[in-house]
Amino acid sequence: MELNFISEALEKVRVQNPLVHNITNVVVTNWTANGLLAIGASPVMAYAAEEVADMAGISSALVLNIGTLNPVTVDAMILAGKAANKQGIPVIFDPVGAGATSYRTETAQRIMREVKLSVIRGNAAEIANVAGEAWEIKGVDAGNANGDVMKLAISTSKKHKITVVITGKTDVVTDGETTYTISNGDPLLTKVTGTGCLLTSVIGAFAGVEKNAVKAAAAALVVYGVAAEKAAHLAADRGPGSFQIEFLNQLSKVSADDIQEAGSFSKRQS
Amino acid sequence: MELNFISEALEKVRVQNPLVHNITNVVVTNWTANGLLAIGASPVMAYAAEEVADMAGISSALVLNIGTLNPVTVDAMILAGKAANKQGIPVIFDPVGAGATSYRTETAQRIMREVKLSVIRGNAAEIANVAGEAWEIKGVDAGNANGDVMKLAISTSKKHKITVVITGKTDVVTDGETTYTISNGDPLLTKVTGTGCLLTSVIGAFAGVEKNAVKAAAAALVVYGVAAEKAAHLAADRGPGSFQIEFLNQLSKVSADDIQEAGSFSKRQS
Amino acid sequence: MELNFISEALEKVRVQNPLVHNITNVVVTNWTANGLLAIGASPVMAYAAEEVADMAGISSALVLNIGTLNPVTVDAMILAGKAANKQGIPVIFDPVGAGATSYRTETAQRIMREVKLSVIRGNAAEIANVAGEAWEIKGVDAGNANGDVMKLAISTSKKHKITVVITGKTDVVTDGETTYTISNGDPLLTKVTGTGCLLTSVIGAFAGVEKNAVKAAAAALVVYGVAAEKAAHLAADRGPGSFQIEFLNQLSKVSADDIQEAGSFSKRQS
Repeated sequence: MELNFISEALEKVRVQNPLVHNITNVVVTNWTANGLLAIGASPVMAYAAEEVADMAGISSALVLNIGTLNPVTVDAMILAGKAANKQGIPVIFDPVGAGATSYRTETAQRIMREVKLSVIRGNAAEIANVAGEAWEIKGVDAGNANGDVMKLAISTSKKHKITVVITGKTDVVTDGETTYTISNGDPLLTKVTGTGCLLTSVIGAFAGVEKNAVKAAAAALVVYGVAAEKAAHLAADRGPGSFQIEFLNQLSKVSADDIQEAGSFSKRQS
Repeated sequence: MELNFISEALEKVRVQNPLVHNITNVVVTNWTANGLLAIGASPVMAYAAEEVADMAGISSALVLNIGTLNPVTVDAMILAGKAANKQGIPVIFDPVGAGATSYRTETAQRIMREVKLSVIRGNAAEIANVAGEAWEIKGVDAGNANGDVMKLAISTSKKHKITVVITGKTDVVTDGETTYTISNGDPLLTKVTGTGCLLTSVIGAFAGVEKNAVKAAAAALVVYGVAAEKAAHLAADRGPGSFQIEFLNQLSKVSADDIQEAGSFSKRQS
Repeated sequence: MELNFISEALEKVRVQNPLVHNITNVVVTNWTANGLLAIGASPVMAYAAEEVADMAGISSALVLNIGTLNPVTVDAMILAGKAANKQGIPVIFDPVGAGATSYRTETAQRIMREVKLSVIRGNAAEIANVAGEAWEIKGVDAGNANGDVMKLAISTSKKHKITVVITGKTDVVTDGETTYTISNGDPLLTKVTGTGCLLTSVIGAFAGVEKNAVKAAAAALVVYGVAAEKAAHLAADRGPGSFQIEFLNQLSKVSADDIQEAGSFSKRQS
């Protein structure tokens, strides 16, 4: 079955507990750590230039997120990224808010140049801004609705030799040749801060156990989206606070059977 | 009805989703973002001098909070505040812990001098310390019980030409001429960290859609207090953890009917 | 009864609401503050060199945690620690991840040298690394399973004249002469980030009201472990998200009767 690689990747995360080193924003640190624990990974956060290379070097994946960037942390991200590159550790990048300010856009582009990234995840506006294409953005959350998202994903992937994940109503995951579109998830994810950031870190967990980056990212998105659907089914009536907590519960519970039943994606080769 | 302006302001927040730029403390970032999402606003956090002016410039309101202040972030607050001032974007200030250390008091006073603030919110001790009046304080949470709070609010408002919000058992909101006293809320709010900080950011959301600052602040306090009462009714027995989550639920659910039924304030003109 | 000192210490925390000054990592700030509020303490977070000495000076305990350390914050920790030492305020230290990178190990050892600590809490690997003994570590969470933990605790305590708390399946608390072993707690604690960090801060709350550091730490561990057992009983089926919230509820509810019924420790004198 096509869905088996997803359950297998999830099982590997739960058995191997990959250490995921996050240099992320101050809004989502706790949420990210709890989400990674729930899915079965081991989170670590380390920001100081004095140690990021060492920490990245003992990790299974490195996640860089510019949500509350500053010059000191950006330098640390690049140090950590280069250390990860040297040892073949996958680096996952979340260009939060690229396009909202020129500092974010330029920093995202600098990270793209100086670190060899395995996966980049953002909404369409963020990816377009990093890739230097025209797109609308408002704040850090918007910009998903319009445009030819799949075309943007594939062209960015080919240009930068990177797996691109663009999330929105439908998610696109592509390495330029294999392209998955995934329709799991729930609109309540947009009512909890950091669900995009956590997804990027969960992609890191999957990339830490599955070397094929496009498969790792697609598996992460299906698992994440199915967990969100289960959480929404149980908690949507109560509100976004209860959904947030139930989503952590479901990340820890989502099973091969759930994926078999609810996993919804298509794959095409170009 | 007197209560209508509150429901109307809430409706505007939910329809317009104002972008609220927060430069806040590291304890409450996640909670603040989730609370703003629950009420219907769009949160953004940005701290770097390299971008705060740009971010403030595309926002509907700017919220400054010195809960875990440091010199770099304070400079960024002032940069952002001046950018907001230039474009007529309302700036809301939370002088967390003013009076607890001289660094906090002096920084709060510096921000008052260098940025034209629209609203300041604190407990009586914090406001007194910023305004340079004698008051008792212990840590960052105390100082609400004694003294002529309304007199303090009105004199501070007139002296600094600013809307003053002093929260405690009864809340006071005044621009020196129109004064609201509000008695919604629940004591459980004091058992969850950052409920004052989130309130300040929610005032920002309301100030982003309602130009009359004293009305915006009063509306925010009634909505917030009614949501807290509903959450306490549902979750107080279970404890402060459950109350915290239920409060997020209720921020997203509180309705015009709830406000009509439970909203409790009086208004006087001087 | 032997268990009475635990209930008495808990009662003192709830009556006196000790102000606990935390200089801690960015992952656990919110969780730590809410946990301290739930147990009955007053949390404050302050990081700037400009104020940490003042803040420590008005607090009942100071907690230092290097989970996301950087040079600026480490210097502030030492400033705060020295201020606390001058006034006889207990300083509690959590050497998160010591051994994972040499920067962490060296920083932990520097803090041990420059600040007179009252209590240090970590897993066996962290304590061994700080004390300069050989031990295995992976990331920041592992290293509890093997080795003669009690021997390590006692020798570290004697060498550094400090109360040592090593947590794991069984916890050890010792000042080199009186040694408690505590078997309360629940494995779900390992599925929520920052439960070790919060425990360290709760030890701070108890040390703020009980001068005998080894008794304060033992009492904190029993209370914490019993609350975790109650939370697991109520929420384990639902998952780690629900457990996290229920644990906050139970920290606020755990009673003398609960401790009498479930408290599980032994004490020996050497």
